[in-house]
Amino acid sequence: MPNPSAAMLVIGDEILSGRTRDANMHYLAGQLTQAGIDLREVRVVSDDRDAIVAAVKALSQAHETVFTSGGIGPTHDDITADCIAAAFDDKNDVRADARALLQAHYDRQGVELNAARLRMARIPDTATLIDNPVSVAPGFTIGNVHVMAGVPAVFQAMVASVLPTLTGGAPLISQTLRIDRGEGDIAGPLGTLAEEFPDLSMGSYPFQKDGKYGANIVIRGTDNAQIDTAISKLATLFPE
Amino acid sequence: MPNPSAAMLVIGDEILSGRTRDANMHYLAGQLTQAGIDLREVRVVSDDRDAIVAAVKALSQAHETVFTSGGIGPTHDDITADCIAAAFDDKNDVRADARALLQAHYDRQGVELNAARLRMARIPDTATLIDNPVSVAPGFTIGNVHVMAGVPAVFQAMVASVLPTLTGGAPLISQTLRIDRGEGDIAGPLGTLAEEFPDLSMGSYPFQKDGKYGANIVIRGTDNAQIDTAISKLATLFPE
Repeated sequence: MPNPSAAMLVIGDEILSGRTRDANMHYLAGQLTQAGIDLREVRVVSDDRDAIVAAVKALSQAHETVFTSGGIGPTHDDITADCIAAAFDDKNDVRADARALLQAHYDRQGVELNAARLRMARIPDTATLIDNPVSVAPGFTIGNVHVMAGVPAVFQAMVASVLPTLTGGAPLISQTLRIDRGEGDIAGPLGTLAEEFPDLSMGSYPFQKDGKYGANIVIRGTDNAQIDTAISKLATLFPE
Repeated sequence: MPNPSAAMLVIGDEILSGRTRDANMHYLAGQLTQAGIDLREVRVVSDDRDAIVAAVKALSQAHETVFTSGGIGPTHDDITADCIAAAFDDKNDVRADARALLQAHYDRQGVELNAARLRMARIPDTATLIDNPVSVAPGFTIGNVHVMAGVPAVFQAMVASVLPTLTGGAPLISQTLRIDRGEGDIAGPLGTLAEEFPDLSMGSYPFQKDGKYGANIVIRGTDNAQIDTAISKLATLFPE
C-alpha cells in the first residue's frame, strides 16, 4: 500500500517578499517522512483571499491530508480561517470553546481579551480545535485540512498534536505551567525533572512582560496521570 | 501600474522529504522584491512528470514570469527539461550550442563528456540559453519560464543573468578564469582587484579535483571591455 499523500500550504506575504525565511516547510517535511507520510506538494501564497481559497480547494481534493501554516493571528491581514471556511462552505465566527480558552489565558496574564485578540477565537462551525500549548490560540481541523500557526514554535507544537491522529498513535496531550522566573533559574531543575519522566517531553517558552521574565513550561505525553504528577512536582519546585 | 507578477516552481524530492532545506526560494524572493517584481506564488513538487507539467502550465498562464529551480543535472531523475518542453509542446534533445559549451568545459578539465553529462545539453528547440558562469551547464528560457539549476551558487548566478532582461537593465555578461591554486592564495589579490573595479562583481567557486585545489573566478558586469581588462590583470597575477 502506498504511503498516504500530504500537501502543505504556506500563507504569508512575508515569505514571498523575502523578509522572512520559511522554516515550517522543512520541519514538516522531516516530521512527515519520519511518520511514513509522503509530502507531495507545497504551495506558498500571499495573504490574498482568492489565492488561499483556490489553493486549499485544489490541495484538499488532490491529497489525503493538507497542512496550512500562517495567517491565524489577531491582525486584519490574518484571513486564513475565513478563507478555509469559505473553501468548505462553512461559516466562520467566534466560537464559545475557543473564546473560553483565550479568556482563561488572558485572565491569567491580566491582559484584556480585546477585539483583535478575539479574532483568534473565530473558528469554522464544523471544525475541531488543535491544541496550542505554547500560546493558547488554537488551530483547527476541517475536513482533511489542518490549519496551524506560522510562528515556528507554535507550528511545531501543533504538528505534534495532529500527527498522532494521522498515524494511529495515541494522541498527545499537554499541560502548561507558567513560572515567573528567568529561564536560567528554571533550566537546571527542569532538566532533572525531564530525566525523571523519560516518556514525557518538556518544553520551555520564555516571555518577557512589563519588565518581568518568565516562561510557560509545556509538558506533553500520552498519559494524563503521568503529566499530572510531573506538573505537580514542577509546581513544588517553583512555589509562587 | 502594478508590479509585474512572478511565480516560482521548485522541483525536487530532496526538499519534500526534508533531506535538504531549500535556499533558493528565500534568495529569489529577496532579489525580486529589490527588482520591483511581485513573487505571488511558489510551488514545490517532486520529480514527477505529471506534477511538473501541470504546475508549469498553471503558473506560466497565471503569472507574467516563472522561475524554476532544480532537476536539470546529469542523472536519470533530472527530468525538468523534458517536462518543460512537454508543457510548451516543444521537443527536447541535445542541442549543438549547449553541447559545444559542455565540450569545451570538459576538454579544459580533461574530463570525458559522457552520456550522463551530455544529458545537460538537452534543451528545448525554441528555448534560449541562460549563462552558467559557475559550472557551465546552461539553464534556458522558454516562453515566460526561466529554467535554472537547484545548486544555490548556480541558481544565484543564473538569477543574476536573467533579472536584468526583465527589468530593462543592461544584461550582465561574464568571463571565467580557472586558477589552479587554493582559495587562500587567491583571496588577497582578488580582493585588491575587486576594489580596483567597483562596477564589476567577482565571485570565486572553488573545486577540488585529483587532489588538487583550484577555483573558477567569475567576473561579471555590463561592460565587456572592462571585464576583458580585469580578466587580463587577474591572469597576470596568477601565471600558470
